[in-house]
Amino acid sequence: MENTITVGLLGLGTVGSGVIEILNDHQERIQHKTGCAVTIKSVLVSDTSKPRELSETVNLTDRYEDITRDPEIDVIVEVMGGIDHTLTILLEAIENGKHVVTANKDLIAQHGAQLFEACQKNNCDLYYEASVAGGIPIIRSIMDGLSSDRITKMMGIVNGTTNYIMTKMAQEGVDFDSVLKEAQDLGFAEADPTADVDGLDAARKMTILSILGFSMPFNLEDVEVKGIRNISLEDIRYAEELGYRIKLIGIAENDESGVSVSVEPSLLPAQHPLSSVNDEFNAVYVYGDAVGETMFYGPGAGKLPTATAVVADLIAVLKNIRLGTTGTAYVQPQFPHQLKSKSERQSKKYIRLHVVDRAGMLNEITSIFAEYGISFDQVIQRSTNKDDERELMMVTHRVSEEDFEKAKHDLEQLSSVRSIDSIFRVEGGD
Amino acid sequence: MENTITVGLLGLGTVGSGVIEILNDHQERIQHKTGCAVTIKSVLVSDTSKPRELSETVNLTDRYEDITRDPEIDVIVEVMGGIDHTLTILLEAIENGKHVVTANKDLIAQHGAQLFEACQKNNCDLYYEASVAGGIPIIRSIMDGLSSDRITKMMGIVNGTTNYIMTKMAQEGVDFDSVLKEAQDLGFAEADPTADVDGLDAARKMTILSILGFSMPFNLEDVEVKGIRNISLEDIRYAEELGYRIKLIGIAENDESGVSVSVEPSLLPAQHPLSSVNDEFNAVYVYGDAVGETMFYGPGAGKLPTATAVVADLIAVLKNIRLGTTGTAYVQPQFPHQLKSKSERQSKKYIRLHVVDRAGMLNEITSIFAEYGISFDQVIQRSTNKDDERELMMVTHRVSEEDFEKAKHDLEQLSSVRSIDSIFRVEGGD
Repeated sequence: MENTITVGLLGLGTVGSGVIEILNDHQERIQHKTGCAVTIKSVLVSDTSKPRELSETVNLTDRYEDITRDPEIDVIVEVMGGIDHTLTILLEAIENGKHVVTANKDLIAQHGAQLFEACQKNNCDLYYEASVAGGIPIIRSIMDGLSSDRITKMMGIVNGTTNYIMTKMAQEGVDFDSVLKEAQDLGFAEADPTADVDGLDAARKMTILSILGFSMPFNLEDVEVKGIRNISLEDIRYAEELGYRIKLIGIAENDESGVSVSVEPSLLPAQHPLSSVNDEFNAVYVYGDAVGETMFYGPGAGKLPTATAVVADLIAVLKNIRLGTTGTAYVQPQFPHQLKSKSERQSKKYIRLHVVDRAGMLNEITSIFAEYGISFDQVIQRSTNKDDERELMMVTHRVSEEDFEKAKHDLEQLSSVRSIDSIFRVEGGD
Repeated sequence: MENTITVGLLGLGTVGSGVIEILNDHQERIQHKTGCAVTIKSVLVSDTSKPRELSETVNLTDRYEDITRDPEIDVIVEVMGGIDHTLTILLEAIENGKHVVTANKDLIAQHGAQLFEACQKNNCDLYYEASVAGGIPIIRSIMDGLSSDRITKMMGIVNGTTNYIMTKMAQEGVDFDSVLKEAQDLGFAEADPTADVDGLDAARKMTILSILGFSMPFNLEDVEVKGIRNISLEDIRYAEELGYRIKLIGIAENDESGVSVSVEPSLLPAQHPLSSVNDEFNAVYVYGDAVGETMFYGPGAGKLPTATAVVADLIAVLKNIRLGTTGTAYVQPQFPHQLKSKSERQSKKYIRLHVVDRAGMLNEITSIFAEYGISFDQVIQRSTNKDDERELMMVTHRVSEEDFEKAKHDLEQLSSVRSIDSIFRVEGGD
């Protein structure tokens, strides 16, 4: 007689029903791989009276204690979302010796350390592959596949909604507001798109990747975040002319002076593999000292892709239960938290500005940059529809945040500068 | 006092010295992750008198028994290559309870089943991530990351030498022989390039991926193999005109009628992510029922990338030793071996031929295809430098191998067909 592992499911939304679907479809495969059968005993929902297509053997409950205190339940699969209330529930479950699989990036980015501590005390597993980049097994790849290497940089397209919006803007020449509306109508973007378009969702994922990749503790507050609301079609066109694509990229870098983690619209060389990651797809580019460049590409969200990652985690927990090795997967960060200062954070920059067309104008501008030791890789000057005006697009060589901000401040004081329209980070080509 | 795990290294070539380098550079990281120190006690080399830069504590030996019979050695890292003799050595090591990490695709593709059986009997681990696609953790991704899904198709650029050659041919318009010579001069291609350019190396990797991905036993002989020697610059140019790139692709497909595994030059849509995998890079595209499309990209060979994969495997073995779970990672194939027949193997085809320009010629040709129910997606007819001759490039819709071969046979009988210059598989666009 085979073992049976009993699961309590928190949440029956899109991902929750995907988990049930995969467990049903792949029961035999899972049994073959793990030597265990899996059964879902109870599901936490907010409204138990709503009709649902579920096997009759599954209990529906709106009281989480029915699950966290049920001694028959071995593993909790959390796909309900939320932060504080969900944390309370999971901590209680862990206190009661239950292993946890979660897809909740907000929770892990914010309270991961506390959850891991509780798990270690209680010999419990905590897996969260689905919290970053949906169906892409990026957490495993960093933890196991690249375990022998020192990761120096990660660049991720880790938010599908913004990548969809920016792909449409670039390919169809439609402006941000129109594409956002279309994405909302199609269900690709939330009614309140703030967490996506302002970069917060991507920042949570980069927090998690940075903790794992660099083996250091980080918080969401450590991530510099800029969203995509201010990207114009002009910038996309100009970037193309300069040989770049604009993507919302999470960038985490680790060198002698420390770590910087940011999420911001960035110019990437058109031939960079991340530049061809389009629509709602995600990808994470990982640089390691020894391995060089690797990339992991796939669907970043969606019912079944996300559920695939959740059930892969569940399979890992099943194996650990069978082998008696639960609670051993977590490794404390090896290094202390070490963030770069503004003078240590360096990158190339793209700046676009409107200027008055008069003698000595370009020299006024370049002398400000020169004062801070900033030199240029590319400069384009262009006429506008006003006779006395020109538009300037400049790509600098590497410059510190601090110096660039000073130069920007000085530019704003110049009477020949009418407007600074946009500033983006530039990756590659150095 | 921490545990120390003792390693015997078989082979001190490029990868072997990379393994030593990574173990030295990342000693602390590994100790932090696993709670064990690793020490290399002995190295098997063919010439012990050759001077080498090695720590004085390492024994060099040319007798494998010094390693396989040394009771202090816990893990064998095999990076010497070879098949029959290496199999003997590893089987003896496993009999003596030693765990094995190997980068040897030839051995795993040919004798994997026998090695796994020996490991199961002796409670030993056998890891071989480096045997497929070097630094890309593709085996782990298939085994763990996508463990909950049913993989339906894998497409891999898994040979760096041929990808380098084909990239140069496409980008620089240099013919096969010249690029091969250049690659040999640069050390990218072997003096005897047969295993690479004729597809055998890629076939071994696809055998391994198919066993894992489809959970079925396969042999190298199950793979249909065609190399890249006959690819002409004309074909590359015509393919581009039709919207495709030519790559040497390993394709493994699994549907109701069975599995087909092949390695052959194939036309891929230019916008397919595999089409931008250039130079010596490798990538594996995996389709799963639930996850959809994922891709894993990185360096397919090289000293440090390959050594990264070897040491990641070693870390997995260390963890298993610490947890007392060695010998549990291997899972027997779940399904019996089930290969498609020629009539079940279907794909689109590209065919290029020279024909006599006379009335009714095209009709003669198309009526042969029509007889076997073969229809066309694209047809281009072109003049040549001979007045009475035309060149035809045709891309079919999906057709069985069997029907296509019959049509080809009939074409060869036609007096209006002067030559059939090339035939390639076509992927995508259906």
